[in-house]
Amino acid sequence: MATEINGWTAPAREVLRVTTSTRIAEVDAGATPGFDGDKQLGSALLEERGARLSALQELLYANGRIGDHRSVLLVLQGMDTAGKGGIVRHVIGHVDPQGVDHAAFGSPTEEELRHHYLWRIEKALPRGGQLGVFDRSHYEDVLVVRVHELVPADVWGARYQEIVDFEDRLVDTGTTVVKVLLAVSKEEQKRRLAQRLRRPDKYWKYDRRDLDERALWPDYEQAYQAVLDRTSTERAPWFVVPCDRKWYARLAVTELLIDALEGLELSWPPAHFDVEAERLRLERS
Amino acid sequence: MATEINGWTAPAREVLRVTTSTRIAEVDAGATPGFDGDKQLGSALLEERGARLSALQELLYANGRIGDHRSVLLVLQGMDTAGKGGIVRHVIGHVDPQGVDHAAFGSPTEEELRHHYLWRIEKALPRGGQLGVFDRSHYEDVLVVRVHELVPADVWGARYQEIVDFEDRLVDTGTTVVKVLLAVSKEEQKRRLAQRLRRPDKYWKYDRRDLDERALWPDYEQAYQAVLDRTSTERAPWFVVPCDRKWYARLAVTELLIDALEGLELSWPPAHFDVEAERLRLERS
Repeated sequence: MATEINGWTAPAREVLRVTTSTRIAEVDAGATPGFDGDKQLGSALLEERGARLSALQELLYANGRIGDHRSVLLVLQGMDTAGKGGIVRHVIGHVDPQGVDHAAFGSPTEEELRHHYLWRIEKALPRGGQLGVFDRSHYEDVLVVRVHELVPADVWGARYQEIVDFEDRLVDTGTTVVKVLLAVSKEEQKRRLAQRLRRPDKYWKYDRRDLDERALWPDYEQAYQAVLDRTSTERAPWFVVPCDRKWYARLAVTELLIDALEGLELSWPPAHFDVEAERLRLERS
Repeated sequence: MATEINGWTAPAREVLRVTTSTRIAEVDAGATPGFDGDKQLGSALLEERGARLSALQELLYANGRIGDHRSVLLVLQGMDTAGKGGIVRHVIGHVDPQGVDHAAFGSPTEEELRHHYLWRIEKALPRGGQLGVFDRSHYEDVLVVRVHELVPADVWGARYQEIVDFEDRLVDTGTTVVKVLLAVSKEEQKRRLAQRLRRPDKYWKYDRRDLDERALWPDYEQAYQAVLDRTSTERAPWFVVPCDRKWYARLAVTELLIDALEGLELSWPPAHFDVEAERLRLERS
């Protein structure tokens, strides 16, 4: 990266990428892997890199308009308060809303429950040229579903391979899948929940069930570990992003998206018309 | 408005609102009605008012999360190059992407053509708590459809009242409808089209059909006039926003949206749980 201001010592895509030795329980959620700058530098850099992300997204959109079917899909997972919404607001907020296909997946509706769990996911996939964002995703079907045993073990157990195959099809058809697990520490979650209970303008974000889930922290760690072990593939790898420092998480996800978009090697679509002839037509109009 | 910097001499909602004497052919697209500041002041103000818009949108979203069904829908119409996309990027771009339901309506698909023209519109209406944005809309069915006589005159002729009734139902069910016609001059359109033919990074925005439509300017003026005359109602009025100066159009639409959101008199949702009891639960967790 040839930026004026920079604090990266190693690319986010390398230091954050899940390996076979990644242990989610041992991740330091307060760390800033690969970045040796402070919050001030990180925030300044986010503005600059947000502009770069926006420029790349416009290229993707432009190519989509002339029929390029490629897209990028950001999958966001993480415990409550990890900051999925903040990523959407402060990272995706840099790009043109027209080019974003955003979907949030809460508890499935009655209609959704009557379909295969990937049904609602398929429907929300980004269109060609779009930057898709999933706030939670099909991974809930091996996370909350597993922790609460909402379906038998053999059913959720079969889903890991199914998800790998599903994402493989996505990549085959031109979607770059960027899977981000936002890692928050149990202490930081407590602070963030306390803030929601302290500020009346945050009450609406509080849900009594968050504490029930919090009590299941070890079960979720186990479920997340299985996700990383079984679904982080060469073609659709997971990245674990420490997020106790929000500014770092936002900067890191921005870099991961920039990297995904640069990988498409996009350029401005050539004119599909006779430029000179059109200039003459316009002149006479 | 009690803002630090201000150039408004009269509220946008008053000076831009369509009256029975509005003549679209006589609108000065280069004017800045109600605003006596220059581009520099306008751009600075846009940042400040964009933040206000964002804060109000978060309030709407928060209320939506606890079951408030109200929403705001921005309907954008205008000739090619009027800057609908720029409004989405630079006005809607200020708010959290999660809270935006954006839809662009191009030529209807085969499936859409087999349905009533409002079918695709209904499907794209904003959910409760969301800020909806229509880039083109059901009005195309009395604009391009009328100009090109895509259906018989008695069919499109019946649509004005149908649209008034449709929007009346929207308002009844809690949607504030903000209808904006972006008025570009024929000369400015020529400049903007010329730019698309001069810059290779703009070629993708150029469509040969734009010049065909440009040749029908008087027909479109007539069709737009009919829209204003027959569908600007007390409950869902039209606003004509001059947009030869893009900074003015963006600022004015921001003000119209702020006004719509302030009209909802939103406040932070109260806690629907026992705050003290939850604090204790959290403390012990």
